[in-house]
Amino acid sequence: MGRVVVEVMPKPEILDPQGKAVVGALPRLGFTQFTGARQGKRFELEVEGAVTPEVLAAAREAAETLLSNPIIEDVVRVADASEETA
Amino acid sequence: MGRVVVEVMPKPEILDPQGKAVVGALPRLGFTQFTGARQGKRFELEVEGAVTPEVLAAAREAAETLLSNPIIEDVVRVADASEETA
Repeated sequence: MGRVVVEVMPKPEILDPQGKAVVGALPRLGFTQFTGARQGKRFELEVEGAVTPEVLAAAREAAETLLSNPIIEDVVRVADASEETA
Repeated sequence: MGRVVVEVMPKPEILDPQGKAVVGALPRLGFTQFTGARQGKRFELEVEGAVTPEVLAAAREAAETLLSNPIIEDVVRVADASEETA
């Protein structure tokens, strides 16, 4: 079983109230080294077989049509989850 | 300026209604190769300088305290954004 990771972030010019809440809370908890924060989405899509280039192409198409709103969001990553580093 | 990526997913045993909605919509749009979907969160945290091991350690602590709910979510990734592959 393969898994594809799709990641979507709000475009830089779009207001991000969730990110603003995070950046406000970080220094109150002692994390003073962070100067900005943005919040987006991570999807994990499962396929029966291997993650082929065709599967990645389909995932990218799904990312740009179903999983993101292209007016306000960018697809920042479409990748085989097994190649991911922690 | 450095950037740290923090990613959080619902634990496997936790119901994920957003993922369920995605997995229901995919075949209706012609994406029949995907058999499962889960939806989580991606955060991008900015720092003034470089992403040092200390910054990554602080980001992991923030991930486990502020950015995720450890009862229902797992921190799946804390990494320097500049090492990310598209």
